[in-house]
Amino acid sequence: MKFTIQRDHLLAALNDVMKAVSSKTTIPILTGIKIDASEDGIRITGSDADITIQTFVPTEKDGDQLIQVESSGSIVLQARMFNEIVRKLPTNEVEIEVSEQYQTRIQSGKSDFHLIGLEPAEYPMLPEVSEETQITIPGDLLKSIIRETVFAVSTSESRPVLTGVNWKITEDGLVCVATDSHRLARRIVSLENLPTNVESVVIPGKSLTELSKVLTDSTTPVNIYMTNQQVLFKTEDVLFFSRLLEGNYPDTNRLIPDEYQTNVKINGKELLQAIDRASLLAREERNNVVRFSTLENDSIEISSNSPEIGKVEEEIQVQELTGEDLRISFSAKYMMDALKSIDGQDVIIQFTGAMRPFIIRSIHDESILQLILPVRTY
Amino acid sequence: MKFTIQRDHLLAALNDVMKAVSSKTTIPILTGIKIDASEDGIRITGSDADITIQTFVPTEKDGDQLIQVESSGSIVLQARMFNEIVRKLPTNEVEIEVSEQYQTRIQSGKSDFHLIGLEPAEYPMLPEVSEETQITIPGDLLKSIIRETVFAVSTSESRPVLTGVNWKITEDGLVCVATDSHRLARRIVSLENLPTNVESVVIPGKSLTELSKVLTDSTTPVNIYMTNQQVLFKTEDVLFFSRLLEGNYPDTNRLIPDEYQTNVKINGKELLQAIDRASLLAREERNNVVRFSTLENDSIEISSNSPEIGKVEEEIQVQELTGEDLRISFSAKYMMDALKSIDGQDVIIQFTGAMRPFIIRSIHDESILQLILPVRTY
Repeated sequence: MKFTIQRDHLLAALNDVMKAVSSKTTIPILTGIKIDASEDGIRITGSDADITIQTFVPTEKDGDQLIQVESSGSIVLQARMFNEIVRKLPTNEVEIEVSEQYQTRIQSGKSDFHLIGLEPAEYPMLPEVSEETQITIPGDLLKSIIRETVFAVSTSESRPVLTGVNWKITEDGLVCVATDSHRLARRIVSLENLPTNVESVVIPGKSLTELSKVLTDSTTPVNIYMTNQQVLFKTEDVLFFSRLLEGNYPDTNRLIPDEYQTNVKINGKELLQAIDRASLLAREERNNVVRFSTLENDSIEISSNSPEIGKVEEEIQVQELTGEDLRISFSAKYMMDALKSIDGQDVIIQFTGAMRPFIIRSIHDESILQLILPVRTY
Repeated sequence: MKFTIQRDHLLAALNDVMKAVSSKTTIPILTGIKIDASEDGIRITGSDADITIQTFVPTEKDGDQLIQVESSGSIVLQARMFNEIVRKLPTNEVEIEVSEQYQTRIQSGKSDFHLIGLEPAEYPMLPEVSEETQITIPGDLLKSIIRETVFAVSTSESRPVLTGVNWKITEDGLVCVATDSHRLARRIVSLENLPTNVESVVIPGKSLTELSKVLTDSTTPVNIYMTNQQVLFKTEDVLFFSRLLEGNYPDTNRLIPDEYQTNVKINGKELLQAIDRASLLAREERNNVVRFSTLENDSIEISSNSPEIGKVEEEIQVQELTGEDLRISFSAKYMMDALKSIDGQDVIIQFTGAMRPFIIRSIHDESILQLILPVRTY
């Protein structure tokens, strides 16, 4: 194997692949990345057994020659070391040559590295994913869906299925739900041509977080292929595989109240900042719980009181306040996460009494719903 | 005590003072900062017993009213909490009022905090520093002096005096030396009107690092007052006190060779980057030691060889190479630290054989000297 590649293209490809490589892996070969050079370009693969990422750099792109392949072949190189070397090479032209015994020479300018590579045949094959059940979503929309839901997955392994986001194909479209049983995030995406062999999958939250870093903010479509054990996200140059979580995802529809006693329309950014301040005092003694109270004259109060430290009261003018008076307590963190996912827009918050879950929506967009369970404080 | 202050001026003052506040302190009152309000402005003090920083915000500056003091007084508030609250307040106008029992109210817009303060009389007094032994240095020069020396202090407490930088007033000017006994950094500053009651002090490296963060890059003079136990750096609005280290600082002059067998003039930035790359392979197995060899045709080689990982060779064209051929090994980190302190300029490196300390200087500036002890590798 011998080829010359432009350093910045190699770096960009490595940057994506490195997101799948974990230093904590127990499988030695997975500390490496696999490089395959062929006439049409090079493929780089990284994996932590849960996530596998493969990027492709074509020999030629938009008329520019990115790679000159002199002879094809494969090699596995220590991922972290190779990535750092490439990042620090002195010129944009990098020659990589593998000789016998997986000896790999990396040359750039007057810098000359010899690395001891690993046997490429030992590297695991890509997961098998049939191209049958396919969904196509613009990349930027996919990023939004992830951002609006993934923060609500459970971080505890006591119910592993809750560490993932449930993607369900329904009559309403693609329904994405995450919950840690104290709060819930739901995003409904109207999509046409959804597959009919209906599927419900649970994608690990960590996979979606890494996928989100690989996606660009463009509308370029991402093709998604699902099987029972794996999902593949396919962009122009990247294949992103993730294993799926096993187990039945709970039915969360019954958690969402169907009637409300108090409705508040309010600026999401103002509310977020007030809760952020109030949580400064709530963090240490009160488990980050703040109180929300309706006041007269169309305003509400966010407050917190910690006998040892002090107290804080934040008053906010609302845009509309209808229904019953209310005092309710909830986690400042959950509320801030929910408001951030709605991104500073005006929101409507709907309550069904101090002991029942309440929901937060953008007033402009029905497709995102955030639900939070209150905390008893008496 | 009651006053109204512009939030951005309060924040800037707090930002400096917080550099002295440690969360690890064993003295409870030092988790707080002291605020003193008087007719001319407010003073804020923070301390970790080693370093004490006091900033001053005047009532009026350049014709702008920064503070309105309604009644004077003092209070101690939890530093981290107060700082975070001020950072997050909604408007630029902040009212602070202390009532009985050190109850402190902080108001800004519709945000209303009540903090439980601490008794200001319990806060330690500022260290006493007579204004006798005074040196005046422009702020930006002081920052350079620190940057060029402080990295070389010892991080081990086995010889506490080596964790500081030795400042000595001599006939040549102010001589600043740091060494951890494996390398040495020396900066000589020609200054006029140095005090004659000759002083040699050892300032803790940590204090200088924090001082450097408080200093701006302007030529505004900093007045320095020294006593046997304390040093005070005084700028327009900041008092920075540090305790001094006790013990005799070793005489380091005898370490510096007075004749050289090999002289190399080379671009500092190119050398730095080559060593940075070579150290990638040297880090894991070889304790970060790289080899430096003179080659023919006016060039040198930086190399490293780790049997398990691979090897690297970096060739660099030099500007001038005189004297004997040489192969020498040294710590990549020490060399990189030294070259960074000289800031990418062309350097001259002077060797006295493979087993003797060698020195690095800028070819443009005789005032900085870096010395490194080689490592035996046979």
